[in-house]
Amino acid sequence: MTRTVITEDAELPSGFRSAGVRAGLKKRNHRDMAMLVSDDPAVVAGVFTTNQVQAATVKLGREIVKSGGYVRGLIMNSGNANACTGEPGMQDARQMAAWGAEALDVSASEMLVCSTGHIGMRLPMPVIQSGIEQLASSLKPGSAMEAAEGMMTTDTFAKCVRADVRVDGVPIRITGLAKGAGMIEPNMATMLSFLMTDANVEPEALQQCLSEAVQRSFNRITVDGDQSTNDTVLFLANGHAGPASPLSPKHPDWTVFQDAVRDITFRLAMMIVRDGEGAQKLITIQVKGARTDEEADVAARAVGNSLLVKTSWGGRFAIWGRIMDAIGYSACRIEEEKVDIDYDEVPAVRGGLDAGSAVETLSEVIGREAFTLAVDLHLGSSEAVIYTCEISREYIKINETE
Amino acid sequence: MTRTVITEDAELPSGFRSAGVRAGLKKRNHRDMAMLVSDDPAVVAGVFTTNQVQAATVKLGREIVKSGGYVRGLIMNSGNANACTGEPGMQDARQMAAWGAEALDVSASEMLVCSTGHIGMRLPMPVIQSGIEQLASSLKPGSAMEAAEGMMTTDTFAKCVRADVRVDGVPIRITGLAKGAGMIEPNMATMLSFLMTDANVEPEALQQCLSEAVQRSFNRITVDGDQSTNDTVLFLANGHAGPASPLSPKHPDWTVFQDAVRDITFRLAMMIVRDGEGAQKLITIQVKGARTDEEADVAARAVGNSLLVKTSWGGRFAIWGRIMDAIGYSACRIEEEKVDIDYDEVPAVRGGLDAGSAVETLSEVIGREAFTLAVDLHLGSSEAVIYTCEISREYIKINETE
Repeated sequence: MTRTVITEDAELPSGFRSAGVRAGLKKRNHRDMAMLVSDDPAVVAGVFTTNQVQAATVKLGREIVKSGGYVRGLIMNSGNANACTGEPGMQDARQMAAWGAEALDVSASEMLVCSTGHIGMRLPMPVIQSGIEQLASSLKPGSAMEAAEGMMTTDTFAKCVRADVRVDGVPIRITGLAKGAGMIEPNMATMLSFLMTDANVEPEALQQCLSEAVQRSFNRITVDGDQSTNDTVLFLANGHAGPASPLSPKHPDWTVFQDAVRDITFRLAMMIVRDGEGAQKLITIQVKGARTDEEADVAARAVGNSLLVKTSWGGRFAIWGRIMDAIGYSACRIEEEKVDIDYDEVPAVRGGLDAGSAVETLSEVIGREAFTLAVDLHLGSSEAVIYTCEISREYIKINETE
Repeated sequence: MTRTVITEDAELPSGFRSAGVRAGLKKRNHRDMAMLVSDDPAVVAGVFTTNQVQAATVKLGREIVKSGGYVRGLIMNSGNANACTGEPGMQDARQMAAWGAEALDVSASEMLVCSTGHIGMRLPMPVIQSGIEQLASSLKPGSAMEAAEGMMTTDTFAKCVRADVRVDGVPIRITGLAKGAGMIEPNMATMLSFLMTDANVEPEALQQCLSEAVQRSFNRITVDGDQSTNDTVLFLANGHAGPASPLSPKHPDWTVFQDAVRDITFRLAMMIVRDGEGAQKLITIQVKGARTDEEADVAARAVGNSLLVKTSWGGRFAIWGRIMDAIGYSACRIEEEKVDIDYDEVPAVRGGLDAGSAVETLSEVIGREAFTLAVDLHLGSSEAVIYTCEISREYIKINETE
């Protein structure tokens, strides 16, 4: 029996505890720090931003994940990215890890640190220190909702998904938390997300599983085309629940585990797009019939990042000319007279020309909370998909000051 | 004496006439068609969009320019781009040329046609036909302001510059008109602009002069990163004023002529950025110290097209972290710890870190109508410059419906 149950809540796997507190990093009265702790040493996998400018916490996290050691916990703060802060920022990140390790009586090399928020400012270390003390004293098993809330910046809701799965006859759980709403760009990077499982997983298999799941989820979304300096996804597996023999691709139930991880990361990614700053809609852009996968990807991203296309989705009209324009200037080879475009089930373009559907019918699709834009280039058999949202006046309002 | 006088008006060179009328292509009560006519056959040069999706008028214009023949005039309409209209759209473009030729008693192959506006709709040909008749009957020498008005779409002002130059002892004039406010992307393309001169210029020299001037002006601006299907720049030279021996790079006064053309195209390009939809500011992005010119260009464009950067310019704060972020994810090689950034004369970043300038001082620069953002990568000696504007809530409002 391997039935997987997916629930959109933050119930932790066994052997994990969490906390989320208001340390005082943000002006508003919100939780701004979180801690996730494993009672046993946990295997860790990580995927980090490919931006050349990287937050101190990204550099530190990469070192720890690369070293292949076990970790015991993770501290994160919002309100300040600890990016563009140089060697002093690295020292601050190490100090955060040291304070957390001290509070939990573990080694500093077993503590991961993540930051998100404004770039270019030093962390207010006294605030961080007292926040870590508060976190350590309020750790509890069960729901990690307070930790998920502590991760939020411009997010309007906490993002969490858990999967209950049976592998090798043993019930195990995978729980994922994520934050992200702006500065979201899909190009081989993502935002903050933390996954935890009580399954026993081989370290290399955990990394492979995470990297592949990120590729299909967080790397397929775009809100504004801006890739962050702090994007980090971490996956901790403490083996608390079993099975006795660690999971790896050779295990007969590996695909059950892998599918659950894919499902969690995909759902979290969709939550991020749905929570795109100022956005109301989830738009799926499918490009097929391209000559190569890469060209299909480039065309889908050109549409998903075109300001004119994204702005039109906030309006009342399906202005398909802007989609033709965007794929036309992308680096994807197209032949104008072969292009077909559909908005859900409604044909908008056939052979590069107006398909003749009534304006009202197309506009009705644009008004939906979620719709799919399908572009067929009819030049090959490659395809790609990107998930995105509209850009509204609200997005501009948020980012003029945040 | 070769003093060049530049004036921001639409006074035509000798031997040219123009007209601008309201044919009825747009809902609002604006001029929407224009005609420019040379009394004598004119040499023509052209630069067209590199978008793979091209308006019918671009395809037709390219044919005429490539054939190397002389032209007599140009008809343009706003409100409808005649793009994504297939072979029927090509026939419509040819019909426009034929009607114009008939009204002027010249050959259809001597008439250029340009369109701008919504993509994907057939032109309302009866409206176009009566518009052409109106245009032909109201042609006049002197100011082409009515023609410049007929070119406007979301533009808030007509864009025109003229240069009075003396070459080989002969006074000649170059007059340029342009339109553009949205769907402006600098990548080897531009918007609509028409230049006319009564100078006698060799055909190849005219094309070389125009291509080079476009590269330094229209190809260095971005409003929203969206490259249009209709971008066209045309330059007509009717030789009406002389000199007897045609201008070419071998002529001693060639640089005088060339500089005047560069000046006109640069001023028109800056007018387009200043008139960027919903924009109030002109921002110059200089990137220097890059390893190659191409990398400098890529970094400058990443900043100029970053939605988060452009949105922040509409606010009250100089959020330089977003600039570090944008150059970091660009394809330009950077080393974070070497980057310097200045807002006009105020240092914002030194060695990748906060330069320590007061927030109020930086914010004062952001509030200026025009400012320069200078990024020094300290990795080489290559540089690039891009001119752009902020993205405001007004831009979104305009493009939700236009």
